[in-house]
Amino acid sequence: MIIDNLIEKIISMKNPTCVGLDTDFDYLPPALKEQAHDLKTAANAILEFNKHIIDHIHDLVPAVKIQIAYYEMYGYWGLKTFYDTLLYAKQKGLIIIADAKRNDIGSTASCYAKAFLGKTLINKKSFEAFPSDFLTVNAYLGSDGIIPFTKEGKGIFILVKTSNPSSNELQDKTLSSGETIFEYIGKWVSKWGKSTIGKYGYSNVGAVIGATHKEQATILRKILKHTFFLIPGYGIQGGNAQDLKVCFNKEGIGGIVNSSRGLICAYKTPL
Amino acid sequence: MIIDNLIEKIISMKNPTCVGLDTDFDYLPPALKEQAHDLKTAANAILEFNKHIIDHIHDLVPAVKIQIAYYEMYGYWGLKTFYDTLLYAKQKGLIIIADAKRNDIGSTASCYAKAFLGKTLINKKSFEAFPSDFLTVNAYLGSDGIIPFTKEGKGIFILVKTSNPSSNELQDKTLSSGETIFEYIGKWVSKWGKSTIGKYGYSNVGAVIGATHKEQATILRKILKHTFFLIPGYGIQGGNAQDLKVCFNKEGIGGIVNSSRGLICAYKTPL
Repeated sequence: MIIDNLIEKIISMKNPTCVGLDTDFDYLPPALKEQAHDLKTAANAILEFNKHIIDHIHDLVPAVKIQIAYYEMYGYWGLKTFYDTLLYAKQKGLIIIADAKRNDIGSTASCYAKAFLGKTLINKKSFEAFPSDFLTVNAYLGSDGIIPFTKEGKGIFILVKTSNPSSNELQDKTLSSGETIFEYIGKWVSKWGKSTIGKYGYSNVGAVIGATHKEQATILRKILKHTFFLIPGYGIQGGNAQDLKVCFNKEGIGGIVNSSRGLICAYKTPL
Repeated sequence: MIIDNLIEKIISMKNPTCVGLDTDFDYLPPALKEQAHDLKTAANAILEFNKHIIDHIHDLVPAVKIQIAYYEMYGYWGLKTFYDTLLYAKQKGLIIIADAKRNDIGSTASCYAKAFLGKTLINKKSFEAFPSDFLTVNAYLGSDGIIPFTKEGKGIFILVKTSNPSSNELQDKTLSSGETIFEYIGKWVSKWGKSTIGKYGYSNVGAVIGATHKEQATILRKILKHTFFLIPGYGIQGGNAQDLKVCFNKEGIGGIVNSSRGLICAYKTPL
């Protein structure tokens, strides 16, 4: 059960943090930046930077969250860096969360599921396109867009309450039943995850809950007993440790907190 | 105005149809399939097939919709085929709709916007990662996840009412205000598009409305006077021409209907 692997790594490292590799080209030190003059060389520079980061964090944190948008900007060369980054991180023992927020109708969702969590079959041989342990997913399309992702035996984190300021526009609206949309989607997440609850009581189907929304996180933690949280928005976006306590149980289990800029740009801060 | 270019091409070709290049490897003829033995050679075979399709349709239809999930399955080689396909289609004069349903918080949405609709800046030189005319986008995160896409001067189609059976689970729910979520998102789409209405009365910010939902399409057409529709789900998914009439005005303008399998697998049907 992939969620058990993640929790065991969190316990053994005493660290529920993941490093977000949202590697903006502008984050790179000048010496690496100067090497780049096109999409390919920029993507190579980003890979080199990522490897340095991974070398320094792999024995401190259980996981990395790799934000694919920062790689798609560099075309297929960027996607090669995304692939090389996740293989390098995997090889160093890190759990891989591919942050891609994929979503589509069933047949197409199956393709995404194969790309990130499963295998692509070509004339009876199978290949892994972007082998990840977890993938973030958007549930606007409902069950038939989610089920294909749950079938691969890996994990997903479904967007429930996102960290951005305008997440309230849709997610905080109240349905005629009296519940908010984030609660409604939360309950679906719980349902989609029911058959994959591991030995620590959490499911392979997790939820994305922004660190910036303590009130909503408190409600969601109460109704989602078996749902592990991926918690972005810590640090520069405004989330802090005190607010996040509601997401965790007494043993400190219940979620993984992501920080991107705050960690990968730490080299810029004088000691 | 990119929406005017699309409408002009629809008018000149007398055809509001786009060909969906959701090119599943299994759709390929045996002679092409047999060449493939890994991700790279499979991606190459798909490119060859796509070029044949484009050669045969570029003077009949105004646009292609390229579903990126079918390329991500083949890793970065698949993304190279996605890129080569869109350049080839562009070169043949087709309008490119990248069907990627991207979504994220503002800073990350900007990366996706650059990747598909804008330019990536590398040491003062700019590059186009996956140059497309339109991108499909998911609005679960609200305005700050949408605005970056509207700033690139190209077009987007936002998921409002999707074609899949379980789209009702969230999209048809009623808010406490009495309106459904698809109506609520529809109104946001109209708002996000207000400043980019072209000479035909439609905006660069369009909506995805499944061909399989006549009732919802009728409601949406009434409230979204300036919103152009991208209409998937025609043919194999169940949508038919009679049901779609509600999306168009008397001049036959108002949307573009996508068909994927029904067209790109047509070669399998005996004449």
